[in-house]
Amino acid sequence: MKLENDLILRAARGEEVERTPVWLMRQAGRILPEYRAVRSGMRDFRELVETPEKACEVTLQPVDLLGVDAAIIFSDILVIPDAMGLPYAMVPGTGPVFEQTIKSAKDVDALAIPDPETELKYVLDAIRMTKKELNNRVPLIGFAGAPWTIFSYMIEGGGSKTFSKARKFLVTEPVLAHQLLSKITESTINYLNAQIDAGADMVQVFDSWAGVLSPSLYAEFGTPYLKRICDEVTRVPKTLFAKGAYFALKDLASLNCNTIGLDWQMDVQNARELTPGKTLQGNLDPVVLYGDEASIVRQTEAMLQRFGVRRHIANLGHGVYPDTEPEKVKVFIETIKEYKHTEL
Amino acid sequence: MKLENDLILRAARGEEVERTPVWLMRQAGRILPEYRAVRSGMRDFRELVETPEKACEVTLQPVDLLGVDAAIIFSDILVIPDAMGLPYAMVPGTGPVFEQTIKSAKDVDALAIPDPETELKYVLDAIRMTKKELNNRVPLIGFAGAPWTIFSYMIEGGGSKTFSKARKFLVTEPVLAHQLLSKITESTINYLNAQIDAGADMVQVFDSWAGVLSPSLYAEFGTPYLKRICDEVTRVPKTLFAKGAYFALKDLASLNCNTIGLDWQMDVQNARELTPGKTLQGNLDPVVLYGDEASIVRQTEAMLQRFGVRRHIANLGHGVYPDTEPEKVKVFIETIKEYKHTEL
Repeated sequence: MKLENDLILRAARGEEVERTPVWLMRQAGRILPEYRAVRSGMRDFRELVETPEKACEVTLQPVDLLGVDAAIIFSDILVIPDAMGLPYAMVPGTGPVFEQTIKSAKDVDALAIPDPETELKYVLDAIRMTKKELNNRVPLIGFAGAPWTIFSYMIEGGGSKTFSKARKFLVTEPVLAHQLLSKITESTINYLNAQIDAGADMVQVFDSWAGVLSPSLYAEFGTPYLKRICDEVTRVPKTLFAKGAYFALKDLASLNCNTIGLDWQMDVQNARELTPGKTLQGNLDPVVLYGDEASIVRQTEAMLQRFGVRRHIANLGHGVYPDTEPEKVKVFIETIKEYKHTEL
Repeated sequence: MKLENDLILRAARGEEVERTPVWLMRQAGRILPEYRAVRSGMRDFRELVETPEKACEVTLQPVDLLGVDAAIIFSDILVIPDAMGLPYAMVPGTGPVFEQTIKSAKDVDALAIPDPETELKYVLDAIRMTKKELNNRVPLIGFAGAPWTIFSYMIEGGGSKTFSKARKFLVTEPVLAHQLLSKITESTINYLNAQIDAGADMVQVFDSWAGVLSPSLYAEFGTPYLKRICDEVTRVPKTLFAKGAYFALKDLASLNCNTIGLDWQMDVQNARELTPGKTLQGNLDPVVLYGDEASIVRQTEAMLQRFGVRRHIANLGHGVYPDTEPEKVKVFIETIKEYKHTEL
């Protein structure tokens, strides 16, 4: 049962590593022609997410084709609101759209706390299949959206530039907001623990819209729910990625997590100072991969130097953009794998 | 010619003030029923922007109705790309949409450096009318978009979540990007100087999309063009508002500007340390104005305490949201006007 390559797990736990491990957010997806071939045979994005054999297949692609140090289960953070009773459609060019949104206490009451082995069985089956197919080559990462981000989608009904509707709800309906966030948190804890039961070797929580909140609103409605998740999901290393919330780094570092993800705006040295004892993940600007090979190598090496070899999991500062050439992604990955840290 | 209320100008120059001055980004706009009445008589948003009598009328409304310490000319940052040869339409619910975008060197060459008194005369006429109607009661603020933000619209053709197309252009076409940014910068300098000739008492440059760039890309494609503007627009106090670019505060503080705008995520004490000798503007979270009166008073006073009375222009951390009640905006303004700083 021992993993052949457990670099990412060791890096997350702060143990010694021979080299910096690497994976990419959105590595299983539109950058790969092999993904697009699978996707084109499906009715829509949701059918791919909900068909374990296919989700497993595209999860394995970047391991086989790009040589990353971890697989991340192909899924979506919106499976949770869906399982709680708010179905969504992924509209090409627009993003997710929810038929109904949360407006009242009645709406919150109507939401279920899903049983993962029933309503989210398709994700867990995909994880079980992927673990079998991976055959212990690399770890498998499970994930979920952070409560605030899921809450935002439930209130807004889709993406937004400012998320002012969701933020307004926090200010005008704080009690109800806490009730909804608690319900999402409970569902998320059950879901992440079920992913671990199914075989996930580590988990990441994506707080994609953390950066739209003020520090005080995030301290009230964001961090406390991440804390509950960190305290109740305990068996594997955990990564928190609160995009844009540079102001919350210190608070996140006080939580019971192993790794903190950094976006491409964050200063590494500053982040190191604010997060003692944590592993950091990131944070190359995804647009660097639009550049030529020499520039990708130069900037990737500069990033590796900034982080040092200990307590770093290399990644981009955000998901890889769909129109990135796979060859450029390989340059990024190979540069990291071949880099000789001066400390070693 | 002396202004009856020049608090904002004094605060910008770091001089003593009896109390903190206040205005709001987007104060002339949809929050006021009086604005909506004028707007409903026009064909579209652009007609309002391009009709000096009407632009003047809505510019004056917040001075008369809300009691702010400055007027800001009612206009849009997109008048510059429009005057350079890229017309836009403001599509309700979507935002600005450009018919053509910039793709090649030929497209950049085809752009004009507009003569403000010809192509942007409607803005200058609106400023002249407003100055006359204001009759020196309060200062009038002129403004323009920052080169990077205007560049983004020219490449993307509208808003975007990640502005990855515009950012990709910086990486793949750096020489052409610099040419385009230079051309926008030259147009902007002429435009701001013409606004000052027409009567603007201070100017603000809005870098709305600064926060999507990495620190290194912003240092190469953002700040240098703001520097040119600051060096060539010299007769009135200048404010730079680089939304989301907390990483650039130190660099902005090295420029020849008076005031730096802060969004609602930025920590005031940290910003003070990074910007010695500058006045700061901001930065209450706009969603605070969705709350009840007691909470608005409490949070506004806390903001005033954090900044202190010197070198502060009170504002929100972003434009006021259109569905904010005018009465709530008045509570914000009155709290600031009545607040007794302990230093005084």
